Amino acid sequence: MNSGITYPRGFKATGISCGIKKDNKKDLALIYSESEAVAAGLFTTNKIKSASILVDLKHLQRRNSQAIFIISGNANTCTGKKGIENSQIILNLLAPLLSVEKEKILLASTGKIGIPLPVTKIKEAIPKLVASLSNDGKSAAEAILTTDRKTKEISFSTGIFGQGKREVRIGGMAKGSGMIEPNLSTMLAFFTTDAVIEPEALREALREAVKNSFNQITVDNEESTNDSVIILANGEAKNRKIKRETKEFKKFSFALKKASLHLAKMIVADGEGAQKVIEVKIEQAWCQKDANRLARAVAGSNLVKAAIAGSSGNWGRIMAALGRVRARLNPDTLDLFINGILVFSRGEKQVYQEKELQKSLGQKEVRIEVNLHCGNFSSSFFGCDLTEEYVRINKE
Amino acid sequence: MNSGITYPRGFKATGISCGIKKDNKKDLALIYSESEAVAAGLFTTNKIKSASILVDLKHLQRRNSQAIFIISGNANTCTGKKGIENSQIILNLLAPLLSVEKEKILLASTGKIGIPLPVTKIKEAIPKLVASLSNDGKSAAEAILTTDRKTKEISFSTGIFGQGKREVRIGGMAKGSGMIEPNLSTMLAFFTTDAVIEPEALREALREAVKNSFNQITVDNEESTNDSVIILANGEAKNRKIKRETKEFKKFSFALKKASLHLAKMIVADGEGAQKVIEVKIEQAWCQKDANRLARAVAGSNLVKAAIAGSSGNWGRIMAALGRVRARLNPDTLDLFINGILVFSRGEKQVYQEKELQKSLGQKEVRIEVNLHCGNFSSSFFGCDLTEEYVRINKE
Repeated sequence: MNSGITYPRGFKATGISCGIKKDNKKDLALIYSESEAVAAGLFTTNKIKSASILVDLKHLQRRNSQAIFIISGNANTCTGKKGIENSQIILNLLAPLLSVEKEKILLASTGKIGIPLPVTKIKEAIPKLVASLSNDGKSAAEAILTTDRKTKEISFSTGIFGQGKREVRIGGMAKGSGMIEPNLSTMLAFFTTDAVIEPEALREALREAVKNSFNQITVDNEESTNDSVIILANGEAKNRKIKRETKEFKKFSFALKKASLHLAKMIVADGEGAQKVIEVKIEQAWCQKDANRLARAVAGSNLVKAAIAGSSGNWGRIMAALGRVRARLNPDTLDLFINGILVFSRGEKQVYQEKELQKSLGQKEVRIEVNLHCGNFSSSFFGCDLTEEYVRINKE
Repeated sequence: MNSGITYPRGFKATGISCGIKKDNKKDLALIYSESEAVAAGLFTTNKIKSASILVDLKHLQRRNSQAIFIISGNANTCTGKKGIENSQIILNLLAPLLSVEKEKILLASTGKIGIPLPVTKIKEAIPKLVASLSNDGKSAAEAILTTDRKTKEISFSTGIFGQGKREVRIGGMAKGSGMIEPNLSTMLAFFTTDAVIEPEALREALREAVKNSFNQITVDNEESTNDSVIILANGEAKNRKIKRETKEFKKFSFALKKASLHLAKMIVADGEGAQKVIEVKIEQAWCQKDANRLARAVAGSNLVKAAIAGSSGNWGRIMAALGRVRARLNPDTLDLFINGILVFSRGEKQVYQEKELQKSLGQKEVRIEVNLHCGNFSSSFFGCDLTEEYVRINKE
């Protein structure tokens, strides 16, 4: 059975090498819908934006798209007018080969900033790319990676049925690694679905899903210039059209959220040099902003991340990270648990087995829970540990 | 000649080992003024504060002090009521030995959080500590260190003269290393001066000095629970009393600023694992807040810091760090210089010798300058590179 972005009906995909990356590694990907699809996208809030994103913001005004062309290894960012011109050259070549208007093609890119696209190489590869479209999403999922170690794919059913009991499906793929931080990151995620859905409903579902997944993860507190999350809905399940504020919408939205969270966690687990996933849960905070800020501060703290890399029970670093946040917090009423072990409460270190704590820190997942006992808001945030490997990767 | 905190007249100091640190490393320090001194202090804004700081905030209400007792290796933070009680035990023992009221002794501590003070060891060592007070500041400067590699001292003349042409002097010592971040850090700095100065003037001078030095540096974006900057002014130079808004005040304030900046730069250069100092200068920003935020974001970016550790000319990371700041910024009017080489201007990469850039990045100091061409405000920020060594130190 097809998996990932080709799991929903009517989608094809491919990934090939055009020579941007060394050693014949795949660096171009294409997602194609056999019929026109409703499209929605969310992009980085970084003021420095890739030319790909500038193109998308324009194309998405039309709401319909049929393909996504992805370049990996070159960000096409800080490339000035030339960057936009190069995007147009690609679109002009690709559109007739796919028999779609060029405004119905979206772009995404990731990689080094400030280097002009090797447009000749890309042009030469495009016919081959189009010819290799297939029902297998795997090669596209490989092509979009940069320093990622693993592909990240998801296939999800929504519990909504269309004509002939065809279940509405969602497929997805993502790349992450460094520069992962809320408000998206050098994080690309692409979703496909065969749902029939209103454009507004699709946008809302995407916004909700991203808020609770990709915006709740951090690898290194960096926000990239190229972060993009795009979804295409081609209606091939022929279900009754999903509109906002309906039971079907809730089901669809829930499924997209689950799929997004799944990919987001895969991104964190595959963060540059990461060996452990850290989940930080803040409970009973004064307000939502406080909860989010505190969770993010702990998950993003270099000292906390390094301590967890070393399986160190140095929870003082967690306290220090919490204390520097602009949020309501009283150390005398705060409970701090690490992997379920209460280490700090009512202003003092608690009695616990140091060995037990250290052993539990050796696991692949570390859970930090903080109960502030001062309100009703909670927030979860996912991060990863900081290892020498992260520095090694980023020194290059 | 005496240097550091014993450079001004009438100050003695010492540092010894009481067994908090391993291998007989010095871990207790004492600064003592032969006469009562005007005191001022600035402390972390972290909501989790050391018991030492809680004591100081109370003692400083009286404005006069005569001694500072410093513990290194144990933060006395998150130690609840016991932490305060232990502080009182120390003060009760120390005060009669120094013949000063205990409210005229200030405390500072740095080290691991959440561990009760080994108060018996400290009590046993206090008589020896007092007996070893001398005109040499060196042993105190050594005792306050934690993961620092080098002592940090400064001796400074102010250009103000008192009785018998005695020049008003400023002395200082500091410790830094990890957790260095604006609004102070696990950063301790102590200044002594023989100036006769109004308490308000001393406080204002200290505030100004810290704002332009210790609050403009970052090692790892962490703010500690123990950051303290304390100054004692004992009046032994017998100059005409320095009051605010006078020529003498300007001279004194300028000297203290210079001394602070000197220590701040030493802290950054000796940041955990650091091999290079990074100076980030933002020019022609829309407002002061924008300039500060942008400078801090670049100096604190893990990706920028790792790139500089690897002498990599990957300036795209600087652009990405700038772009994610909430500040006015237009990539089309921005100039970016690295070590004086214009690498990006008017939205595009500039022509420059890659080899020349890379060679210059091999130096001990890296200068990043950004001209936004959109206002009149500027800011400088100092940071250090991110190396595998930083992670290694903090995994322990």
